[in-house]
Amino acid sequence: MTKESTTIDVGEPSTVTKSSSHVVKKKGFVAAAAGGGAKRGLAIFDFLLRLAAIGVTIGAASVMYTAQETLPFFTQFLQFQASYDDLPAFQYFVIAVAIVAGYLVLSLPFSIVTIVRPLAVAPRLILLIFDTLVVTLNTSAAAAAASIVYLAHNGNQNTNWLPICQQFGDFCQNVSTAVVAASIAILFFIVLIIISAIALKRH
Amino acid sequence: MTKESTTIDVGEPSTVTKSSSHVVKKKGFVAAAAGGGAKRGLAIFDFLLRLAAIGVTIGAASVMYTAQETLPFFTQFLQFQASYDDLPAFQYFVIAVAIVAGYLVLSLPFSIVTIVRPLAVAPRLILLIFDTLVVTLNTSAAAAAASIVYLAHNGNQNTNWLPICQQFGDFCQNVSTAVVAASIAILFFIVLIIISAIALKRH
Repeated sequence: MTKESTTIDVGEPSTVTKSSSHVVKKKGFVAAAAGGGAKRGLAIFDFLLRLAAIGVTIGAASVMYTAQETLPFFTQFLQFQASYDDLPAFQYFVIAVAIVAGYLVLSLPFSIVTIVRPLAVAPRLILLIFDTLVVTLNTSAAAAAASIVYLAHNGNQNTNWLPICQQFGDFCQNVSTAVVAASIAILFFIVLIIISAIALKRH
Repeated sequence: MTKESTTIDVGEPSTVTKSSSHVVKKKGFVAAAAGGGAKRGLAIFDFLLRLAAIGVTIGAASVMYTAQETLPFFTQFLQFQASYDDLPAFQYFVIAVAIVAGYLVLSLPFSIVTIVRPLAVAPRLILLIFDTLVVTLNTSAAAAAASIVYLAHNGNQNTNWLPICQQFGDFCQNVSTAVVAASIAILFFIVLIIISAIALKRH
């Protein structure tokens, strides 16, 4: 009996229901489009930040890698020179920052997906999780190198570690530049993570 | 005419519609409750992780702060001793990790809010953003200290920095423990950030 009464064709009312549901759907679509527009803007900003971060990290790694200085005087057996591979912290810096730059290049397609489909959750979540992992790698590289750069500049009387920057001024300059660049990359990553968090949140 | 046809009392059908809409409402409620339940579980895990991280960071900072060793021999003017404030990287470690521990304590109320209201967006977003900032502070402290600990253990022949851990073995042991504890805190933070990201995402 229930079935019969539901199949009664009442004409007008069904149209009314349809049109009202249509209006609701349209409203939902408009709201989603507005949210999508804002999120697309965020996604484009995300993409540009990644490009900038790629430049900064490649710059940091290559400045550190090429930083070397040979002193103009030398003895018969020994020539004084400094390069990044004299110090394990600087070697770690070059490797870690190169990995970060590589990750950033690989993350670009995901960033493009978030531009094309600004409401997709999966690529956003993937980017946020890997950005978080990689920012700790980047930070550890920058801090480990910064710690050694500080020591190279100031030395430490308590442990009798003498500063080396008096002799190797240019080397220290380049190494410091690389550390500053890596620190700027940290800021970029923090902004990238905040962008992903805002894009992930429900309206 | 439209109005008339809609107000026709057809008895059964209206009841059917009502009951079906009732079912739909209930389903929606159930879905929200299930989502809320899962998110409440995440929020409780988040709270417990924060408690663990507080323990680990307070432990790291206090082990580093109290690490000191006085050698049993001394000259007339000089007594050989090592403590955290002999090395700027260790001073930075103590200050930074103490700030991290303080932040974690202050973040507990927000974590409790996410347990009580698992679907609230604002406290989640606040936690995620500040967790991201603080994890870089924590990582930089751990990496800067690790870099110096490595040097204290191994020294560096190229820069003529001699290892000090032969003399100050216990000091080095304590300092290394503090660095390991701070590194564990980094892992906790990464998990906390991922939890926040998952809790933020739309269903």
